[in-house]
Amino acid sequence: MKVFCNRSDLNRALNNVGHAVPTRTTSNILEGILFEAYREVLKLTATDTTITIESVIPADVEDSASFVLPAKLLTSIVSKLPEEEVMLDINEEQMKVNLVSGTSSTELVSFSADEFPKFMLSGGHNPVNIRKEDIKKLIRKTAFSASTDDFNGVLTGVLLEMADGNMKMVAVDPFRIATFNVDVDNSSSISVIIPAKLATDVSRIIADDGEEYMTIEIIDNKVVMIFDNNQVTVNTFNGKFIDYNRILGREGQINIRVKREELLKSIDRASLLSSVKNNNLIKFTIKDSNINITSLSEEGRIDENVEIIKEGDDLVIGMNAKYLKDALSAIDDEEIMINMKDQVSPCIIKPLKGDRYIYLVLPIRIN
Amino acid sequence: MKVFCNRSDLNRALNNVGHAVPTRTTSNILEGILFEAYREVLKLTATDTTITIESVIPADVEDSASFVLPAKLLTSIVSKLPEEEVMLDINEEQMKVNLVSGTSSTELVSFSADEFPKFMLSGGHNPVNIRKEDIKKLIRKTAFSASTDDFNGVLTGVLLEMADGNMKMVAVDPFRIATFNVDVDNSSSISVIIPAKLATDVSRIIADDGEEYMTIEIIDNKVVMIFDNNQVTVNTFNGKFIDYNRILGREGQINIRVKREELLKSIDRASLLSSVKNNNLIKFTIKDSNINITSLSEEGRIDENVEIIKEGDDLVIGMNAKYLKDALSAIDDEEIMINMKDQVSPCIIKPLKGDRYIYLVLPIRIN
Repeated sequence: MKVFCNRSDLNRALNNVGHAVPTRTTSNILEGILFEAYREVLKLTATDTTITIESVIPADVEDSASFVLPAKLLTSIVSKLPEEEVMLDINEEQMKVNLVSGTSSTELVSFSADEFPKFMLSGGHNPVNIRKEDIKKLIRKTAFSASTDDFNGVLTGVLLEMADGNMKMVAVDPFRIATFNVDVDNSSSISVIIPAKLATDVSRIIADDGEEYMTIEIIDNKVVMIFDNNQVTVNTFNGKFIDYNRILGREGQINIRVKREELLKSIDRASLLSSVKNNNLIKFTIKDSNINITSLSEEGRIDENVEIIKEGDDLVIGMNAKYLKDALSAIDDEEIMINMKDQVSPCIIKPLKGDRYIYLVLPIRIN
Repeated sequence: MKVFCNRSDLNRALNNVGHAVPTRTTSNILEGILFEAYREVLKLTATDTTITIESVIPADVEDSASFVLPAKLLTSIVSKLPEEEVMLDINEEQMKVNLVSGTSSTELVSFSADEFPKFMLSGGHNPVNIRKEDIKKLIRKTAFSASTDDFNGVLTGVLLEMADGNMKMVAVDPFRIATFNVDVDNSSSISVIIPAKLATDVSRIIADDGEEYMTIEIIDNKVVMIFDNNQVTVNTFNGKFIDYNRILGREGQINIRVKREELLKSIDRASLLSSVKNNNLIKFTIKDSNINITSLSEEGRIDENVEIIKEGDDLVIGMNAKYLKDALSAIDDEEIMINMKDQVSPCIIKPLKGDRYIYLVLPIRIN
């Protein structure tokens, strides 16, 4: 039985579903990709059981067939095939698939599709339309703030909330918060917590080209996202997200307006003498129209100065350079507003107007 | 005492001499870069005792001074400084150097220049002029073939020979040979064996821009190369190189003319099923006007076919895919000539005409 398809299509589909192939697993079959040929398509599926990615490409299919091929090897081979036309010659009895392109021919041992985990979604008929670009942006601007420590449970996820024409994503770890929101042309409601790592994987698969819109839907405690020729199904967290609004609400009396890139570059240089050992400690001395940023180690001392426009008292405060760099790098605005209260209260970064984004970072106690 | 210089100059010099800073060392001082300020220059020196790199940049120097600063940290800092003008404020008594650029100021603890290893070259007044491009090319096209096993002594080096208007480089390991030569506008003679790893380092420092020519000279068992504002001194091997011409001379009766890139791509695909475990074994079946290339593993079998023009008998021979890929990737020609004798004799790759390059690869015994 033969299937004909295009090398570039197959290559892209392999790279997409490849994001779901586990890097380490005790189950051999999960290192494979399920191929299902039917009607005029070839459907590829990979899963690590927390995320499942399906990708469909057009194909000339002689007869229906399904089989599993090793993901890594196949992806390497297809990326190097000489011609755009690829023929898969499937021998289901001998469990072999021969991949032919030009004068290159690769016979791979295949595995039974029956061994591949099945998953069925019940019902679900209320998909919400959103722009691919919006969901990518939300993930990229917040997911880095989620906790990477599995013991933090729900904090390793990002909260996606949609209501009243607004879509918002929030990530919280014990020392920082990131929120970002966009207006959407849609009054549907969604509230779901997606593992941050999987959200980041999804943002990498969503192509900049192709369709403008995608659909998103919650079915059986899973998020199902459909875009271009892909369907991505991601497990979600049960349980409640933490009440981050309570923390964000406590603003202080010190307001600092500053050029974002200038501040970012100064913190970046100062961080060269900070280290993970001391929580990436840098010291801010905020006085009149200047932030003096210093860091200290056995090797020396770095001193940076950034001009600001300040309302409120002077302040000396210890900060985590990495957390500030992460937040400042996620912002596009030329100027930002930093709100502070005292040495032990959080530092809150916002736009000059409104609250399209809020980045909160806890200070480090200094003597 | 103050020294003023340009950030880009300093940055480039740090990156150049950085190639000589050892990645692992028990001597702290070698993790540093020696700075010597005098007259109107700042000279940077780094060494791991096998290679020494000096780089000179223009500077406004108030007074002579020398000191050592930590290479890695300093390189990171200079790459991120905000302004092009950099001031080094040197406090020799307190052993501190303050690096100021715009509103950024970094005070580094310095070490005494006296602790830095000195090296003096005696005499040497016969530098040979060669094109930078030529020496880069020779290194890039041969050094990968040198042995990486220290037990192979002189074979971990590349032989550089210059005589009668020709410059040649040769690298040999127990399973392959690479030679490349260029015509030079120079009748001087040189014969020296340079550690291949150091030769590769040198090829990375030689910039494509700047002066067209460099000088090379053998002094006290060292090679001294001077180009642009750099002087690189490299230890050489004592002893005799092996008599590679004796091996290259034994050509066989089979001559194959083939398109280089087509062959390279086929070998590259076939190598996906070969592995280090089996010496990257691929099988060539040379018959009439075709090379059939196969590789085999538990996962399957790859079959490739490449058109050739052949003189001589058919042949089945086992080859190391990696060695062939290395050689074919180093060649620019569209078509090449492969000479073979039998299953146990070397495969010799040459241009269609002449012997500007020769790549020899030993076969792998197959059943």
